[in-house]
Amino acid sequence: MPHTYKYPRPALTVDCVVFGLDEIDLKVLLIQRQIEPFIHRWALPGGFVRMDESTDDAALRELEEETGITKVYLEQLYTFSDIDRDPRGRVVTVAYYALAKLSDHRIRAATDAENVAWFDVDDLPQLAFDHHKILDMAMNRLRAKVRYAPIGFELLPAKFTLSQLQRLYEIVLTAKLDKRNFRKKILSMGLLIETEEREAGVTHRAARLYRFDRRKYRKLAKQGFSFAI
Amino acid sequence: MPHTYKYPRPALTVDCVVFGLDEIDLKVLLIQRQIEPFIHRWALPGGFVRMDESTDDAALRELEEETGITKVYLEQLYTFSDIDRDPRGRVVTVAYYALAKLSDHRIRAATDAENVAWFDVDDLPQLAFDHHKILDMAMNRLRAKVRYAPIGFELLPAKFTLSQLQRLYEIVLTAKLDKRNFRKKILSMGLLIETEEREAGVTHRAARLYRFDRRKYRKLAKQGFSFAI
Repeated sequence: MPHTYKYPRPALTVDCVVFGLDEIDLKVLLIQRQIEPFIHRWALPGGFVRMDESTDDAALRELEEETGITKVYLEQLYTFSDIDRDPRGRVVTVAYYALAKLSDHRIRAATDAENVAWFDVDDLPQLAFDHHKILDMAMNRLRAKVRYAPIGFELLPAKFTLSQLQRLYEIVLTAKLDKRNFRKKILSMGLLIETEEREAGVTHRAARLYRFDRRKYRKLAKQGFSFAI
Repeated sequence: MPHTYKYPRPALTVDCVVFGLDEIDLKVLLIQRQIEPFIHRWALPGGFVRMDESTDDAALRELEEETGITKVYLEQLYTFSDIDRDPRGRVVTVAYYALAKLSDHRIRAATDAENVAWFDVDDLPQLAFDHHKILDMAMNRLRAKVRYAPIGFELLPAKFTLSQLQRLYEIVLTAKLDKRNFRKKILSMGLLIETEEREAGVTHRAARLYRFDRRKYRKLAKQGFSFAI
């Protein structure tokens, strides 16, 4: 059943940049398209927005349908509207980005995706549409925001060592950080809770595990406190 | 001539939150609607996106058409897509925010606006659609961003006194700042150029005028420097 409007309308889609972290690399979740255009090309998970859902809901739905990922921290990134960004005609896309703990999520491809996989952000295949541009903006947002908001903890297990935390910043910021300065800075904010536990299964001296004090951060943030690394 | 699609599509609009600053208040630019829905209600300038323009171009066009404002620093804010946000049906809007030097711009209403005016952000009329929500988010973005990016200078004349600069932060952050601490913090970043000029037409001792060193900031930012107030 066709739908008719007085004035032409762009089609509206959502696309999701999902970041994950393993011990060595920052990863991004991609699907392999099984429909035209760009059939068999790797792309960001996403799809058309339905009339009865917000773009937030559409992003969560597409992510679950195409990759199996649910319960993830999603944030709107930017809306991309270049007039020639889609060979099918005028398509505007609202992009989201998400941070996922790799270990929490089992991925599986479905609907329009013939495959789904985590890729190292420094070793990406050619992507469909303007998805390289969207991914670049998501990387820049992540790199800027980890420095002034405690979003990095979304990428770590609930309990982590200070070395793991430093490694996260080093991977995201692609910079080597001074260990002493980093520990001083992060501990002086008073946002880490020292647990009684130590890491397991290591050959070196087992390091202390910490948790991020989300409640304290929320309270401090309301009082004007600025997180800064 | 009607336009027909296989699947239904939301209509797409843009809306612009333009901030300006006078000596006392933070202002926002509103238009009075001369068409339904919300006829005669005050609203953010904005309108439908055309098929041959990006949302950036649509925002600049609507701003010029409805308010006369051109050459302004526009940044995408957020896309609002609640399914019931417009009584005409499904309309998704890409919101922008802009910072304008009040003195630089003459405003005049045209096209769909019967009136245009600057309003004190603390003394607003009832607004059309979800424009209060859009404005709230723009306020939050401005308040957060002035602290970690030098965007406040967009609201000031090219040459300003340190008192004017402090007043800007006090107005935007709605907080009284300590004069000595503020000056120490802002001068220590080395981003202000002391001019040979002093303010004119004041009865007290005329204060030194400064300029913001945009070129130096860009250079430092590339090297990882973080602006912070």
